[in-house]
This record gives sequence, structure tokens and C-alpha cells, in this order.
Amino acid sequence: MQKNVGEIYTSNNIFIKQNQINKYAEASGDNNPIHLDEDFAQKSNFGGIVAHGMLILAQISELLTSIFGINWAINGHLDVRFRRPVYVKDSIQSIIEIVSIELKNDKSKINCKVSCVKNNDDLVIVGTAIIYIPEQKKEN
Amino acid sequence: MQKNVGEIYTSNNIFIKQNQINKYAEASGDNNPIHLDEDFAQKSNFGGIVAHGMLILAQISELLTSIFGINWAINGHLDVRFRRPVYVKDSIQSIIEIVSIELKNDKSKINCKVSCVKNNDDLVIVGTAIIYIPEQKKEN
Repeated sequence: MQKNVGEIYTSNNIFIKQNQINKYAEASGDNNPIHLDEDFAQKSNFGGIVAHGMLILAQISELLTSIFGINWAINGHLDVRFRRPVYVKDSIQSIIEIVSIELKNDKSKINCKVSCVKNNDDLVIVGTAIIYIPEQKKEN
Repeated sequence: MQKNVGEIYTSNNIFIKQNQINKYAEASGDNNPIHLDEDFAQKSNFGGIVAHGMLILAQISELLTSIFGINWAINGHLDVRFRRPVYVKDSIQSIIEIVSIELKNDKSKINCKVSCVKNNDDLVIVGTAIIYIPEQKKEN
């Protein structure tokens, strides 16, 4: 489907639950106790269990996939900064804005501003994503 | 622990299994059939089931966490390009090389080249990661 500069896409607000963090730990193999052990996390500098940064980034990726399909996951470019930890029960929302579209070698190069905010306010992740989409041949 | 320019860290070679892709789909919410449905994937341009790009990126993140601890996940900067799809039964290995270390405002800014290769040869993901580590006060 045709994409246009200025379009903004947002995900639903989702609440981060311990159960999802546990599943992510199992899938990714990252079992750091800061994500899994309430006692350990309480005594750490964070004062509570923190979601994996990549679990939050996965929500941005999921939104990019819903907009751009497999072209994102296979040939995308992502440049992000993690800004703040996300705790259990924080809600997060991902936001994608198309900032430019260029035609290059029969591909559309789509440049997006990406971000994730928690609790409707605090920036958690901010950055850019570039997606290359092959031009579809027009039928005459 | 003191880090030095030129140090190279590698993960074990791991084989991507459908079971892990299924777990990742559940944890991330990304249930695109290209990752889950063999018939669908066979008929697609890819010719078989493809792992989520973010699942592969998570392996790089896991290695960064093992080297830099929570400083990576909470305040890192990641700039990566997805280069090739990873299929079920491909083996992947992540590689991190420290390319520079600067002291900035009481933090070490550590710049790394990051990559993931499959089947010992093909680049799957390539990019850079920056980690900021607070300087530990020296005891006199």
C-alpha cells in the first residue's frame, strides 16, 4: 500500500507483565536476575524488575512489521538509543513517523522516526529506522 | 572489569530451531506466518521459515549484556543493518569488537563493532553499539 511522508502510526498501549518478561527471557536466553528476581532487583540501583531493552525494542519492530511487512525484518536498518528502564506494570506505546521517501535503484527507501514512550510521557527508546521496499511494477 | 580497545568477544554458535522461533513469537507478539507456517513460508519468496530479525538481534544483545552488564540494556545505543534472512537450522554466531574507548563526563563511552554471521560465513547483521559505563571511583 502507498505510504506517504508525514504518516504516523501508533501501537496500542500495552502493560509490561512479569509473565511476558519471563517468556522473553526463555526465548532470548537472557536470564539476568535484574529481569527475573524481585529480591535481587529491589536491592539493585533500579529498585525493581526491569524489562529487557530488547523486549521493548521488539514492540517497535512489531509495529514496523505491521506497516512494512517482511521488508522490514529482512533488510531494515535500525538506529536506536535506550533512554530509560521500563518496569513491570509500566505501559508502553510505540510511535512511527514517516519522515522521507526516496526512490533508489527500483526501491523505495523509507526513513522513519521511531520511538517508544512509557506511561504516555517518558521516552524509553528513540531513533530511526530505514526500510527498503521493492517497487511494484505497474500493470498497463 | 577493565575493557581494552581491540578485544573481541564471540558467542557460541547456536542453531536456530523452530521451537525457539515459536517462543519468540509468543513473547514478542509477532505471529507473522513467515515465521510459523511452513506451507506459507515455502510458497513465499523466502522458500522456507525465516527467524524474526529481532530474535537474531537479541543474540547480539545477549552477548553485549554478558560483556557490559545492565549498562548495555539501560543506556546503550545500537545501529544495525539486517543483511540476510536466517532460516531454521542455520547456525548463528555473534561477534563484538571494542574499537574505541573515550572518557566523557565521568563515563567511559565504549564503541563496538557488532555483527552476526550465519553458517560461519554469511553476514546477517552488521553495525555498531555504544555503551556508557560510569567510572568506578578508585579507592586510595
